[in-house]
Amino acid sequence: MIIVGELINASRKSVGEAIKQNDAAFIQKLAIDQTEAGATYIDVNAGIFVGKEGDYMEWLIKNIKEVTKLPCSIDSPDPKVIERGIKLNGEEAMVNSISLEKKRLDTILPLIAGTSLKVVALCMNDQKMPETKEDRLKIADILINRLIQNNVKLENIYVDPLVQPISTNNTFGMGFIDTVETIMEKYKGIHTICGLSNISFGLPERKFLNRNFAVMAIAKGLDSLLIDPLDRKMMSSICAAETLAGRDSFNVKYLKAYRKKKLEV
Amino acid sequence: MIIVGELINASRKSVGEAIKQNDAAFIQKLAIDQTEAGATYIDVNAGIFVGKEGDYMEWLIKNIKEVTKLPCSIDSPDPKVIERGIKLNGEEAMVNSISLEKKRLDTILPLIAGTSLKVVALCMNDQKMPETKEDRLKIADILINRLIQNNVKLENIYVDPLVQPISTNNTFGMGFIDTVETIMEKYKGIHTICGLSNISFGLPERKFLNRNFAVMAIAKGLDSLLIDPLDRKMMSSICAAETLAGRDSFNVKYLKAYRKKKLEV
Repeated sequence: MIIVGELINASRKSVGEAIKQNDAAFIQKLAIDQTEAGATYIDVNAGIFVGKEGDYMEWLIKNIKEVTKLPCSIDSPDPKVIERGIKLNGEEAMVNSISLEKKRLDTILPLIAGTSLKVVALCMNDQKMPETKEDRLKIADILINRLIQNNVKLENIYVDPLVQPISTNNTFGMGFIDTVETIMEKYKGIHTICGLSNISFGLPERKFLNRNFAVMAIAKGLDSLLIDPLDRKMMSSICAAETLAGRDSFNVKYLKAYRKKKLEV
Repeated sequence: MIIVGELINASRKSVGEAIKQNDAAFIQKLAIDQTEAGATYIDVNAGIFVGKEGDYMEWLIKNIKEVTKLPCSIDSPDPKVIERGIKLNGEEAMVNSISLEKKRLDTILPLIAGTSLKVVALCMNDQKMPETKEDRLKIADILINRLIQNNVKLENIYVDPLVQPISTNNTFGMGFIDTVETIMEKYKGIHTICGLSNISFGLPERKFLNRNFAVMAIAKGLDSLLIDPLDRKMMSSICAAETLAGRDSFNVKYLKAYRKKKLEV
């Protein structure tokens, strides 16, 4: 599983405070902890600081780079901020995210065209949030084609079909995972990704729902997740699901997690 | 979810002892507990008692019928035992099970042809255990057609594609759930069922793997399970998965389970 660690996000109160206080140690601990917990990328988001987002993005990335070799996921809708993030990371970075929204597409596509950057491709356009599998696939097809035409390789694209709350419409769960399945079958080598927490909005025991939804999505082919890698129950569920899905040769990862007492069941 | 409560099985030591001791109260408590925990059928298996299986099957069913209105799942490969079980239950019973094994098919099909009995149809023939999705589907297609030709309604058929240990072959998990998905799409109105525990054979934390596999199978369309309904973590996972799969209108069942403090997360 490709795990994008979500914790360094300025919209989280403690992270916003640490940025304002120039508390590099706090940020670096989050980077180290997520690395040790098994993250593949460290997501970096300074979006709440209007006007200062670029400066803070740079400060965050520089501090993160001092303590981990993991590449960052540069999480911003602003092409200028993304550009500064890419300069510090090189082409191993992930850009989070592009979409079919015209402004976003026109400004971010030039940054990734012809590069080996990874890119999260949101199934969203300027009209409305997609509601059905068909809505999602229509946007995904156009967006994937635009990326490929601009020399982005399929294996560098991470499609996010967008998770919406099951409490709003009970088709949203299957709509999401069925989209994942179709995309993974249709575009061999591509990735699918999501943040999970929207699925459980408005319901109790949200973490429980989120991790079960992760397991369901893995059954349908999802191979990447934007999550808190320090959530041991979530990581244990992912580990089990990957083993059950046959992605864990000789069950080595599962048995290792068990032996190291990392499984929280 | 259609839950077949698996606890009244003579191969479980306490149940075997209770049968030998004529301890009706023990059996009846298991029937009541499973009913209250949300079972749809009570599985009854006296298979370890060679020569006495039919008598014990009758004794078990009579005692169960005194304390619950739930129909039984008559769990035996022996047509004579099944026939006695059907007489006590009427046509609301489930017959567990038929398969493409010649002897089983020839002797059990006449018992269910033209009735409204439910029947578990195992994806097995006389050659070997199916290993791939294709093996399973080939058997399922023939078996389903035989049943339909003998006036068994699609909605009374519960196909069991057979779970095999992921520790033996890491394609067995996806092979199973992909079969479920294809059968549920191809034969609208049919059911799919399984016992889960084989999936985790040879690995640690088996119950954890089993319930995550249940969640994965539900994502692919599985609608029936042969399980221990007293396993609250399993039942909670099933409840979450059904809600996330959009099978729980307005999330009523999930919210009720939460309010009644039945969710074990």
